[in-house]
Amino acid sequence: MADPLQSSPTTFTPTPSTRVRVKKRANYDREVVHRILDDAFVAHVGFVVDDQPFVIPMVYGRDGDRLLLHGSVAARIMRALDSGVPVCVTVTHVDGLVLARSHFHHSVNYRSVVVLGTATRLRDENARRAFEVIVEHAVPGRAAETRATNDVEYRQTMVLAVDIEEASAKIRGGGPIDDPADVGAVGESEVWAGVLPLAVVAGIPVADAYTGEAVTEPASIRPWRRPTA
Amino acid sequence: MADPLQSSPTTFTPTPSTRVRVKKRANYDREVVHRILDDAFVAHVGFVVDDQPFVIPMVYGRDGDRLLLHGSVAARIMRALDSGVPVCVTVTHVDGLVLARSHFHHSVNYRSVVVLGTATRLRDENARRAFEVIVEHAVPGRAAETRATNDVEYRQTMVLAVDIEEASAKIRGGGPIDDPADVGAVGESEVWAGVLPLAVVAGIPVADAYTGEAVTEPASIRPWRRPTA
Repeated sequence: MADPLQSSPTTFTPTPSTRVRVKKRANYDREVVHRILDDAFVAHVGFVVDDQPFVIPMVYGRDGDRLLLHGSVAARIMRALDSGVPVCVTVTHVDGLVLARSHFHHSVNYRSVVVLGTATRLRDENARRAFEVIVEHAVPGRAAETRATNDVEYRQTMVLAVDIEEASAKIRGGGPIDDPADVGAVGESEVWAGVLPLAVVAGIPVADAYTGEAVTEPASIRPWRRPTA
Repeated sequence: MADPLQSSPTTFTPTPSTRVRVKKRANYDREVVHRILDDAFVAHVGFVVDDQPFVIPMVYGRDGDRLLLHGSVAARIMRALDSGVPVCVTVTHVDGLVLARSHFHHSVNYRSVVVLGTATRLRDENARRAFEVIVEHAVPGRAAETRATNDVEYRQTMVLAVDIEEASAKIRGGGPIDDPADVGAVGESEVWAGVLPLAVVAGIPVADAYTGEAVTEPASIRPWRRPTA
């Protein structure tokens, strides 16, 4: 029988640090974790300097079970992470507001992933490839449409890899879970309760002043076009 | 002359911990910080347990220069924060993807706030009021439409206050800032570059099964109705 505490190709092993307290919200499935990571543009990266926690929003890319971060070599966060410190990378999608019949049962529908790992600096070809992975993470297809990173740019940038050593997803969906005393029978409550769905949507792309008038929108952003636009 | 390092009613004082490296993106204006905090539903709260940073998404409320958090008394984060540890509370809005002509100059338009402070537990009336503040933060007007927190619920919940001791906002807007060599003259680049705006929008509210058919949507969620809905 498989050891339930062993990471498998399809799941991450919950540890004392990543085990989600409320079991019905927990998910350690590798594919679920990857999908939540892939769907977001910005991660919140936590690290510690002199006992003070810092949480900084950063763009990122995913390369298998490794997250890639980058920033100016002059940025404090990059200097702190360069030294091989433990980090926490958290990604959250807010999918809706859950409006209950009591203050207490109000909630939020969300999908989040918490990753624990250690940041290590990448160099040379591994670092150069990271730029491409990060661009492709946000806008698939965009890397091939634009110029790759040159030596000057590469020297200004620090690239960090965080191997996903521990990870857990937490997901809440569905309507409010009200106190029975506040609810009554189905279809009979006089207090409206339910969900206000929220989603991130793209507006009309805005070309910059240098873009020639005859230049059409690139293939990479066409999937963002809404049917009505 | 005023000491530029003194917090004033209108600004937070940048400290070595909150000073933003790229000056043109920095903002310490109290009103700007408050507005960014007020516009978000979820904050990413960072804290340290045994040298390991954790970043957890949490709903919150703002009461002047104090942020209010809550959670189950059984949750690890609440037990950790209860002991008066330093925290970092970060809120980020992603406003657009910035598509440049080189991988390097791709960016994101965003508004973020980083708050440093210490979490302290609230009790009794201060704690009870926090439920209301947190509900009102997400959906103004909703607290009056629904039942206040009772004793049983109150005992299950830990309420924490984080006084905003240090805070900074960081904002990026506008189009890509390309390398001159990649751009050419205005209106003449053959590579499309620009911004894909992103926004959080609400969908059609979904009432739960208990809501009576004759019950109309409450005033609190009407502002979310889009003109086309």
